[in-house]
Amino acid sequence: MPENIPLPRRPRGNTLCFSRPVPIAGFAAVGGKREMRGPFADAFIATSSDDFFGEESWEKAEMRMQDLAASAALGRAQVPRAAVDFILAGDLLNQCIASAFAARSHTAPFLGLYGACSTMAESLILSACLLDGGFGQRTLCVTSSHFCAAERQYRFPLEYGSVRPPSAQWTVTASGAAVLETGRSGPGIVEANVGVVQDFNVSDINNMGAAMAPAACETLLSFFRDTSTRPEDFDAIFTGDLGRLGRDLLAELLLREGYPAGDRLCDCGTLIFSAEDRDVCMGGSGCGCGAAVLCTHILPEMCAGRLQNVLFVATGALMSPTSSFQGESIPSVAHLVHIVA
Amino acid sequence: MPENIPLPRRPRGNTLCFSRPVPIAGFAAVGGKREMRGPFADAFIATSSDDFFGEESWEKAEMRMQDLAASAALGRAQVPRAAVDFILAGDLLNQCIASAFAARSHTAPFLGLYGACSTMAESLILSACLLDGGFGQRTLCVTSSHFCAAERQYRFPLEYGSVRPPSAQWTVTASGAAVLETGRSGPGIVEANVGVVQDFNVSDINNMGAAMAPAACETLLSFFRDTSTRPEDFDAIFTGDLGRLGRDLLAELLLREGYPAGDRLCDCGTLIFSAEDRDVCMGGSGCGCGAAVLCTHILPEMCAGRLQNVLFVATGALMSPTSSFQGESIPSVAHLVHIVA
Repeated sequence: MPENIPLPRRPRGNTLCFSRPVPIAGFAAVGGKREMRGPFADAFIATSSDDFFGEESWEKAEMRMQDLAASAALGRAQVPRAAVDFILAGDLLNQCIASAFAARSHTAPFLGLYGACSTMAESLILSACLLDGGFGQRTLCVTSSHFCAAERQYRFPLEYGSVRPPSAQWTVTASGAAVLETGRSGPGIVEANVGVVQDFNVSDINNMGAAMAPAACETLLSFFRDTSTRPEDFDAIFTGDLGRLGRDLLAELLLREGYPAGDRLCDCGTLIFSAEDRDVCMGGSGCGCGAAVLCTHILPEMCAGRLQNVLFVATGALMSPTSSFQGESIPSVAHLVHIVA
Repeated sequence: MPENIPLPRRPRGNTLCFSRPVPIAGFAAVGGKREMRGPFADAFIATSSDDFFGEESWEKAEMRMQDLAASAALGRAQVPRAAVDFILAGDLLNQCIASAFAARSHTAPFLGLYGACSTMAESLILSACLLDGGFGQRTLCVTSSHFCAAERQYRFPLEYGSVRPPSAQWTVTASGAAVLETGRSGPGIVEANVGVVQDFNVSDINNMGAAMAPAACETLLSFFRDTSTRPEDFDAIFTGDLGRLGRDLLAELLLREGYPAGDRLCDCGTLIFSAEDRDVCMGGSGCGCGAAVLCTHILPEMCAGRLQNVLFVATGALMSPTSSFQGESIPSVAHLVHIVA
């Protein structure tokens, strides 16, 4: 470690400690029509009545969503595009095309990420490292997912009308963007924990919550041990996106390890849709789910003073249709971001 | 920028300057049978006579290549797996499964990257930022590609025996791994330049060199201007992977801008295969190409004292088959790493 950095930035285990809070200066999310029937409808800055967002394909719609979310987040942060030092973005589409194509409208250096549904946390963590390390002053973090694009890529063409088992989740049509800038006010990232890839031999692609819950548990335990904290030290712990089943599994796993989390354990996948919306089975999933809940609920609540001290733990299932066809299990990962108001 | 970091880490433009060289303590590459007929055959640490590497699918072979390369690089660096602070990895397979599945054998935090063929440079740059920023002491950078897995994913099943136009490139079957550790000897990363996504409206997926050459040119010009250097200040400039056509285009573009590079401009795609190997058309491509040439040629030459001062500029074409089917052009990006012996 360079001797001119007095603070140890990784004092214990895998937990990173920033030398000062890295401020989230602006944020925004765009959502599809189903998301607009959910509880955070008023907080989305744009939507589309047909989920096409004026484009001619779902993939282009997803690129457009990223662009809309990024523009709004930059506007709210009052950061011009030309002042951004890095874009860190990723999505679920093969070769992350939504992110790469959306990045064409920017002039900032681009770092493409792939962490499945954990990508928003990965983006925030790497951004915080770059800013706290002095490699820039402003980053733009963007992720997205689109139900229709994801269905045909991962499962079946929508036209098949295939029925899904009750343990399945519903890919969220949304994009969330956050602008981090040093020296600003706003909720700040103070710590982070990059997850280790876990594989608990779950291979049911209609039960991702079960595959990802142990990864969320491992990352939370690593963080609690490194920082000598417990769930009750935080106002809320938002995982994304385990769904109802995965959330309950995680609660059980944490309880067994002596870290009961109770009602402060929430999951972005269980929050984003209306409770009356039965089609979504266990809840939402996708890169856009955690990002959208972060930008329409968690950060607004922090700015309003109703949440002070939050853990955002985004989980990713790192399989592909090819790996599943080849009989592989589902590796998963969870990245944790500690945000204070 | 935190005031306790005296050195500006981004003094001009997009170029990052590390406070001291970030050492590459160990490196290794694994190659397929065609790569073993090329000029760097002796420098690969393992190969497979059928490109399956003892596995039952090409995708699993690619995971196995990553594991072999990572193990060898860690062994050469004398860094135990448990001491690695971050793995930064990516590949060309949908959802980057080679990297995620290979990461299961490690206990380090995992950061998944997607930059197409630029991924090795992206991994080295983010690693150097994390280490120079004090967020860890050791990182493992790994990328890979596999001709057979890439062909069926991006183009046609091999069984079709489809003919390719002369401007096409051949995906390299290889994996390269590098271990970075603070305080070590060895070639060191001193500067870097993260590329901006460029789109010059090239849409011919059989001519990626033309799509990527302007991105390499932009990144090189950005770096030369930021650092007040010129091509002749470096022993060699290795792009990866433009192929012969793309390399010539880049030479022409640099010449027009007043930065003639001459013979010091080499391309990993033109180096990795035997000159007699006509099947490969314009040369190699794929995440594994640049990584393999880095680990079997560039870094060994630096360790042997035959190269002192090198630019490694990895380029990525950020399209997907879906974006191409939808008539989109090919966005591209190039990331630059400045390495000194």
